Amino acid sequence: MNTYLLKRARIDAEAGIEKAHFLNPRARRCNKSLGDLTGLTGFGFHLIEVKPGDWSTELHRHYYEDECVYMLAGVGTATIGDEQFAVAAGDFLAYPRGGPAPTIQNTGDELLRCIVVGERRSHDVGDYPNQNKRIYRNQGLPWNLVDIKDIETPEGGEKRS
Amino acid sequence: MNTYLLKRARIDAEAGIEKAHFLNPRARRCNKSLGDLTGLTGFGFHLIEVKPGDWSTELHRHYYEDECVYMLAGVGTATIGDEQFAVAAGDFLAYPRGGPAPTIQNTGDELLRCIVVGERRSHDVGDYPNQNKRIYRNQGLPWNLVDIKDIETPEGGEKRS
Amino acid sequence: MNTYLLKRARIDAEAGIEKAHFLNPRARRCNKSLGDLTGLTGFGFHLIEVKPGDWSTELHRHYYEDECVYMLAGVGTATIGDEQFAVAAGDFLAYPRGGPAPTIQNTGDELLRCIVVGERRSHDVGDYPNQNKRIYRNQGLPWNLVDIKDIETPEGGEKRS
Amino acid sequence: MNTYLLKRARIDAEAGIEKAHFLNPRARRCNKSLGDLTGLTGFGFHLIEVKPGDWSTELHRHYYEDECVYMLAGVGTATIGDEQFAVAAGDFLAYPRGGPAPTIQNTGDELLRCIVVGERRSHDVGDYPNQNKRIYRNQGLPWNLVDIKDIETPEGGEKRS
Repeated sequence: MNTYLLKRARIDAEAGIEKAHFLNPRARRCNKSLGDLTGLTGFGFHLIEVKPGDWSTELHRHYYEDECVYMLAGVGTATIGDEQFAVAAGDFLAYPRGGPAPTIQNTGDELLRCIVVGERRSHDVGDYPNQNKRIYRNQGLPWNLVDIKDIETPEGGEKRS
Repeated sequence: MNTYLLKRARIDAEAGIEKAHFLNPRARRCNKSLGDLTGLTGFGFHLIEVKPGDWSTELHRHYYEDECVYMLAGVGTATIGDEQFAVAAGDFLAYPRGGPAPTIQNTGDELLRCIVVGERRSHDVGDYPNQNKRIYRNQGLPWNLVDIKDIETPEGGEKRS
Repeated sequence: MNTYLLKRARIDAEAGIEKAHFLNPRARRCNKSLGDLTGLTGFGFHLIEVKPGDWSTELHRHYYEDECVYMLAGVGTATIGDEQFAVAAGDFLAYPRGGPAPTIQNTGDELLRCIVVGERRSHDVGDYPNQNKRIYRNQGLPWNLVDIKDIETPEGGEKRS
Repeated sequence: MNTYLLKRARIDAEAGIEKAHFLNPRARRCNKSLGDLTGLTGFGFHLIEVKPGDWSTELHRHYYEDECVYMLAGVGTATIGDEQFAVAAGDFLAYPRGGPAPTIQNTGDELLRCIVVGERRSHDVGDYPNQNKRIYRNQGLPWNLVDIKDIETPEGGEKRS
């Protein structure tokens, strides 16, 4: 079988990785990264399953990476910034860089299944509004997580520091 | 309605853009770019419809951009380099940068529907093996298309030319 | 006169910008950015003058930007990490990304003059070892400065947070 | 001796690399890349020597890389696009991306010595106006050189080709 093709039966047989968000144990999902399985590195392409009552992720926003969700099955409630919306199969949610923080809760009785696509940049910054925390992700460094209240924003008055 | 959410009914009502490949009139499809409709710029996210007998694209390969396809409905024959494979709903095809050239023909009787995701880099190079042509796409310049036989590959012996 | 050419007399007549480092008032210099004056954006090219006793910059290291210094006149003591070296006209100092933190003190009686070249990336992280502080510079966001002791490094166990 | 410091005596003792441009044997110089010698990768920093009568490079322009020259010794005639200028020690020449094509001829009796700094991007396109040729430099591919008359500029009408 060609390594560039994953047949549906092969995808269904895949166990997937159970992931809980490091800041929120109720933000948990089963993740089959079809992109990782086939050697894609330019973006992430994931099949996600969220159980009834669980959230797809801790509410967060990226400053530099676009992300989106295409609903395949089940129903949920999407939070986008301050607003909430019912979502179902065939709906599309866009999370452009710098936009409001989103998450989706499975508010139905069956599995919520969706495709999640996200950029994989060398550098990103993200905020967790409900935790008052900011994360810095820079290639080659460990993730850096800080309380937003501990961040100073000096005026350098110059390009080079 | 939130601009970050496209409900299924809204997507269905969208006319889409009929696109024929500039090098092959039988490589034609109807394209609803959900990413463009919602302001994503970091990658393209497209719903594609290909009619029976048509091809999704002219056979081509990217040197710098990853691309992938997730089949939603219909059946087709995927060409990946020298090989051919039957594809149907739920199948996933990965086209990693530098890999073999792919395309999909709708070999069934109904619409072939799929999701296509692709990187949007500032710079890319692509080959059309059946046309013996290479394309250079660089942000801010028009596309440059050349016959591969007209390309020289000098040894510069230095970094700066 | 062509805007791409700065004659020596024109450079000499330039007042330059007096800059003190926001973390250290004795790290101060007069900066003539020849690159800025001529519209270069891909890197910084600066003529720097440091008075006797002053430092070229607060000791710092970049994680993602290369920088270098070419000495034109005067004498100084360069600190590179834990070591110190005498420097004079014609010497070259390289500060590769991720390397030890450098600075130069003018330890002579006349002006220390040098060329400083540095990358201008969209994203960088820097440390000030003598201040126990880290700076995050990301295009479009204000500089973020934190005490290194306030940084957590969680193990996410996943690509997407 | 610290690997980040090149003393003047060490630089003077360096043989340098004699380079002739692959498109013009009279465009030749002796190149000491201080950046390469010290492990810098983010840009090139070169000490260049051009003999009386020779040119620093074949006339060319970069579409994506900035470059600049700082004159250290000798005299020359700079060509920038259609114009010519006398240059001498202490002069600065900026070659911003997309600007006119430059080169410098040593029109004096002694060595012309200068610093050349240039970006090192993963992707660049350059033109040689006197040769009617274009070069495509993309990381991981050999240089591609074509006659400009052989380039087509198709209107694709779509993002994805």
